Amino acid sequence: MIKEDSTEIVLKPIGIIRTPYRGNYAPYQPLEREEGEARLILKPEYHSALADLEKFQYIYVIYYCHLIEESWQARICPAWAKGKEVGLFASRSPVRPNPIGLSVVKIKKVQAGEVVTNLIDAYDGTPLLDIKPYIKELDSKQDANYGWIMEVDGYDHLLLHIRGIAHKD
Amino acid sequence: MIKEDSTEIVLKPIGIIRTPYRGNYAPYQPLEREEGEARLILKPEYHSALADLEKFQYIYVIYYCHLIEESWQARICPAWAKGKEVGLFASRSPVRPNPIGLSVVKIKKVQAGEVVTNLIDAYDGTPLLDIKPYIKELDSKQDANYGWIMEVDGYDHLLLHIRGIAHKD
Repeated sequence: MIKEDSTEIVLKPIGIIRTPYRGNYAPYQPLEREEGEARLILKPEYHSALADLEKFQYIYVIYYCHLIEESWQARICPAWAKGKEVGLFASRSPVRPNPIGLSVVKIKKVQAGEVVTNLIDAYDGTPLLDIKPYIKELDSKQDANYGWIMEVDGYDHLLLHIRGIAHKD
Repeated sequence: MIKEDSTEIVLKPIGIIRTPYRGNYAPYQPLEREEGEARLILKPEYHSALADLEKFQYIYVIYYCHLIEESWQARICPAWAKGKEVGLFASRSPVRPNPIGLSVVKIKKVQAGEVVTNLIDAYDGTPLLDIKPYIKELDSKQDANYGWIMEVDGYDHLLLHIRGIAHKD
């Protein structure tokens, strides 16, 4: 029936993500503050494919969450929404059947085979799979909502996380 | 040096995407019009992980562009921006080193192991890799731009494509 389903898909990193996050801490989402940066370092064969990227304000970064060791669970309790249990696909947890990470970050500059961005929510050394331009209207949906996040007690605190605003936890 | 780079990454489809697009036509971006729909059909082991997803207005759909046979090129001429050549990573072409597709679509309903959405820019039978909630503010960047698209002659026509508005080509 679902023939395409059984195939294994093999991907190859196009580079690596450099961030200050080593050990056991990385933020839950990109941080838009000015200080600090991440670097997307591409393998030489991909350098010229970065042309024109700096004309965009934002990009999508797609990566492989290579440090995940746990098995995925169909329902999870997000660390930043204590007490709330939700379906895995309604969450951004990296512990998924395919641990693909997706982040929207701002370009600071593009230089010699690398893209410098604001701080991304990935560990240092994360394999980079793809970079795509984030295009106004196509990607910035004005009528998007917060889903189940608005049902959580103290959702105003969660919104600080979403906005990447520094605060005491 | 870039040790993590050399690893091959193996993913497994979590399901399949059903669309009306067979043969050699699919749109360049999702179509938000009311008529027509796409179905993301999950394998049974993932059904319960869809809980709470319907509370979101939009989702990210991540998929594998399985029909791509060409090799990627570092610089391309997007079909919808005739005459313009840009770096591959500054484009949304599916012919990429890792042919991962990413689309933002609206949820129509979630039912019995499947998500019904507006028409997505993927061929019928496309392997589904992941579904993530699209979260207000985290993902809807108000200050996003159009990048090089504004440099193209007749960009107002391109914006119709981006907006998924039906028009004669």
